[in-house]
Amino acid sequence: MSEGAELLDLANGGLEMTIPVAHGMGIRFVELGPGHAAAEAPIEGNGNHLGTMYAGVLFTVAELLGGALAISTFDTSAFAPVVKGLTISFLRPARSAVRATVAMDDETVDRLTAQASEAGKAEFELVAEVHDAEGTLVATTTGTYQLRRIG
Amino acid sequence: MSEGAELLDLANGGLEMTIPVAHGMGIRFVELGPGHAAAEAPIEGNGNHLGTMYAGVLFTVAELLGGALAISTFDTSAFAPVVKGLTISFLRPARSAVRATVAMDDETVDRLTAQASEAGKAEFELVAEVHDAEGTLVATTTGTYQLRRIG
Repeated sequence: MSEGAELLDLANGGLEMTIPVAHGMGIRFVELGPGHAAAEAPIEGNGNHLGTMYAGVLFTVAELLGGALAISTFDTSAFAPVVKGLTISFLRPARSAVRATVAMDDETVDRLTAQASEAGKAEFELVAEVHDAEGTLVATTTGTYQLRRIG
Repeated sequence: MSEGAELLDLANGGLEMTIPVAHGMGIRFVELGPGHAAAEAPIEGNGNHLGTMYAGVLFTVAELLGGALAISTFDTSAFAPVVKGLTISFLRPARSAVRATVAMDDETVDRLTAQASEAGKAEFELVAEVHDAEGTLVATTTGTYQLRRIG
């Protein structure tokens, strides 16, 4: 098993333990590494009466990436992420599985690490894009998270 | 059975049929009438590793009220609600069941009815408050919905 696949297995096992309601939606991390994360949600079990994905599932698949990115990017023995708020825009109905992605550049990582080390916390915004199986952008989210020093 | 209890039974049965993932979270409408709606979510099954309610459940219990309020307030043979976006602020961790509430005054109902009748759609914002079992405000949401003429 590659290192990447092992990390994903750990993350998805961790999700089942820590946020069972999200794991129960069938949401799985599919990409995780320093500065980037992606997760997918199936349409099965997550639709509504219009045959489109329920808003709360789109929220969840995107929101989870804030914590996942923080864990895969920052030193987890020193910092923990907390979500403060999130804005989601529903752009198109999703009639298939969706994939949410986020990214953070090295400069931002360094700045937040320094700030949280010194001040005990650092706030950051993270934009997630959610695409359907055809590549259509169905939702975007802007989450406000705090990186808290725990070490 | 009182008329109110019957309406709630209908609404909760409807939720199970239309958005099973939300019903599966144990979310139930507990108050529904023209201009007001409330729903509750249990902490059981909806917590995270910190023993607090997962963000996606707080989102869902509040977001559902937009549709529920629209259905219990407007003529459902003529209008249907659609959510366009939502902003949620997480104020305090919720360690118990929560109750989300929304309200809309008569003047707004009349204005939106007139606007959707004439223009085919009317946009409205709805603020929901989410309280824990001790009455602490744990989250607020501002949803943007559209009332669409379907008749």
